[in-house]
Amino acid sequence: MSLSMTENEITLAIIQALKEGKRKQFQDILEELHPYDIARQYEHLPNKHKNKFLVFLTIEQLTDLIQELETEDQLEVIQKMGIEKSSKVLDMMENDDLASLLTDLDPEQIEELLGEMKQEESAVVQNMMTYPPETAGRVMNNRYVWIPKYYTIREAIAKLKHFAEIAQYLNYLYVIDDEKKLVGVISYKDLLLGSIDDRIEDVMFNRVVKADVLTDQEEVAKLISRYNFVSLPIVQEDDTLVGVVTVDDVIDIFIQEANEDIEKLSASGKSIDFKTNPFVAAYRRLPWLILLLFIGLVSGSIISNFEDTLQSVVALAFFMPLIAGMTGNTGTQSLAVVVRGLVSEDLEFKQVLKLIVRELWVGIIIGITCSILIAIIAFVWRGSFPLGLVVGSSLLLTLIIGTLAGTIIPLVLYKFKIDPAVASGPLITTINDILSLLIYFGIATAFISKLT
Amino acid sequence: MSLSMTENEITLAIIQALKEGKRKQFQDILEELHPYDIARQYEHLPNKHKNKFLVFLTIEQLTDLIQELETEDQLEVIQKMGIEKSSKVLDMMENDDLASLLTDLDPEQIEELLGEMKQEESAVVQNMMTYPPETAGRVMNNRYVWIPKYYTIREAIAKLKHFAEIAQYLNYLYVIDDEKKLVGVISYKDLLLGSIDDRIEDVMFNRVVKADVLTDQEEVAKLISRYNFVSLPIVQEDDTLVGVVTVDDVIDIFIQEANEDIEKLSASGKSIDFKTNPFVAAYRRLPWLILLLFIGLVSGSIISNFEDTLQSVVALAFFMPLIAGMTGNTGTQSLAVVVRGLVSEDLEFKQVLKLIVRELWVGIIIGITCSILIAIIAFVWRGSFPLGLVVGSSLLLTLIIGTLAGTIIPLVLYKFKIDPAVASGPLITTINDILSLLIYFGIATAFISKLT
Repeated sequence: MSLSMTENEITLAIIQALKEGKRKQFQDILEELHPYDIARQYEHLPNKHKNKFLVFLTIEQLTDLIQELETEDQLEVIQKMGIEKSSKVLDMMENDDLASLLTDLDPEQIEELLGEMKQEESAVVQNMMTYPPETAGRVMNNRYVWIPKYYTIREAIAKLKHFAEIAQYLNYLYVIDDEKKLVGVISYKDLLLGSIDDRIEDVMFNRVVKADVLTDQEEVAKLISRYNFVSLPIVQEDDTLVGVVTVDDVIDIFIQEANEDIEKLSASGKSIDFKTNPFVAAYRRLPWLILLLFIGLVSGSIISNFEDTLQSVVALAFFMPLIAGMTGNTGTQSLAVVVRGLVSEDLEFKQVLKLIVRELWVGIIIGITCSILIAIIAFVWRGSFPLGLVVGSSLLLTLIIGTLAGTIIPLVLYKFKIDPAVASGPLITTINDILSLLIYFGIATAFISKLT
Repeated sequence: MSLSMTENEITLAIIQALKEGKRKQFQDILEELHPYDIARQYEHLPNKHKNKFLVFLTIEQLTDLIQELETEDQLEVIQKMGIEKSSKVLDMMENDDLASLLTDLDPEQIEELLGEMKQEESAVVQNMMTYPPETAGRVMNNRYVWIPKYYTIREAIAKLKHFAEIAQYLNYLYVIDDEKKLVGVISYKDLLLGSIDDRIEDVMFNRVVKADVLTDQEEVAKLISRYNFVSLPIVQEDDTLVGVVTVDDVIDIFIQEANEDIEKLSASGKSIDFKTNPFVAAYRRLPWLILLLFIGLVSGSIISNFEDTLQSVVALAFFMPLIAGMTGNTGTQSLAVVVRGLVSEDLEFKQVLKLIVRELWVGIIIGITCSILIAIIAFVWRGSFPLGLVVGSSLLLTLIIGTLAGTIIPLVLYKFKIDPAVASGPLITTINDILSLLIYFGIATAFISKLT
């Protein structure tokens, strides 16, 4: 195949080969493609050629392909392959990919698929599914090489060579004792540089960084990225080695966690992507909107309590959206700083205090700046000095309180092990809306004689 | 060192060794620690022990340590080490870490540091600094192994062994021709499984996935994560191999990009973390807040244009925060879906149309649901059927428009290569605020005779 072929030219060549039934020619094209590229080709292929495409693939290629597809397409391919091929493919699939495919299916489909597999393979996956979602046990895989501690470097290299096909990353070998307990780790680099007859237990690294099967996936991702590992061994309570989490999973975990933070901060509802159908998307977004609707009613009833004040000075309504909006925004700013800060740092009590004092100062600085500005504008616009004073002093107070609420509430939630990002939609917005209106109309009512 | 020692016990043992001046004992403790652990120990050490700690470290350990520290601490360590040691450490540092240290310094400090280094090392880093920030050229490093295409597998393994110390990940070797052009890649796995006298160019993979030095770092990160690579070769325009970007950098890039998205969506200002001082943090947050203040004034002046309507039906003010808030929120929801969707997918025109139609339907569904709800509530609360109708129909219209604005505006920005996340603060909020108030008071004014 020519190296300079574009993706489209490759597609045309593939269709040509499929039409003419030339499997050799088809395989020549595929040889230089990565699994990701093969999956893209499959996705873009006209439907009428898809069956033939699958027939021409080897079991290894089918496995690679299926691991790169989205759940919907995976199921389509499994169905098209037929029982015999698909059972072989499922056996060869990486455990974590298979577990994540099964997560999205209903129990009947799971049983049917697992039934097609070899018992030892399906047992591994079924075991993984018993761990809670988003834990190490759920995302780990078994593409690693372990060696007994009594091996020599020579024996280790021989075993490594033998398992090169299954181990995705060859950077470390994990060392276990007679009871399968993890006792050490040795890098491939150390194998290369050591002398051939050294015993592994004499040259291995004893203090292994590892994680328990029940560790939260985000913690595992943090460990791997801090230590710059390509894989982290996962052990059971008794230190038995049961799997590894690899760096490619870490990238997915970080993207997933960042998306979750954004979903919560923007109250946009769980897992909506470009392919979600409108009814599902609306259904997922509605709870937040309806909650916000009732929050809006609370604000409305506060305003209605100040109906007399408002009736006598309608101009107060002009500054309402401004004050509520600014308070909400400074709260969201603080919230975002706290939520993202917690992704990379673990907070100690001393730092928490420092952070709150910092945000108090931020609130005071932005409060003073914005309130002087709005007081002058209100005075110039409406020609009323008292109005300027009421609007300015309200904004000063609400900005300080909004900033602190946006800082303290997520920290308290974090302390109680509740995801602080949850705070955004309901809590921060409600509290800041209600407080800002109460302060604004409270101050205005106190000075009502000066305003009219 | 005992394996069961906690971090605190290790700290105590380190202080003990430092006090007694026992370097051997100190090194025994450090032997089992990873660079990340050593950096944490250094950070937590009382100030009076830090100098001795640095004296006891080898140049390799100092290099590892400095690469794990934050800029401020890096500079402190460089100063404490003195010229002679620090020039050696700078020479040994990884290019990308050094470049990122230099990015945060002023020109004088950069010159001083580069002056201490070997010329060939400083030339490499200075060259990296000529690429724009957030491009492949800026984050690449030279911890990879290349081989000429005429090598045999035997020669390749010999070279690999020789360079094992510098190559961080040993998964692939890059193959170049006589002009240093990248012509192929071979995985370590293939070296292990091939026969020892095969020529590299006969067994290598010809179709190399690579990126140009000027590629955006986010694109590079996408490529690496899609293909599950541990490193991606970076080439100049003429295909000369100049570096690799490795998977650990990809994790940092994804975290950085997610943080940038959140900063922009929450309008929280650039790079504020737990350590930013309050004046800097306030200074970075203020521009958005002042912009929002003026946007609030625009809303205020719209309301003031409907002063007569508001004067005759003060109850209209009660629903103002609700309508503006809901419209803003549905816009932010759509925006978040679009911004995060674009992280993992490249949109084609057909999909864009589909997405807009999808969001139109979402807007209609949530619009109908919420407007029926609010119409009933408004009617029951205020006992006015026309008021319920005005509030309900306004909300229906504003929710549909808000949803579409939150979808279309970021897509248009994306099309014109402007980061769509920027849209949040100023654009979506302004447009939705202004439109919702215009619609609400417009409808109310039209039915004013029924409302009073």
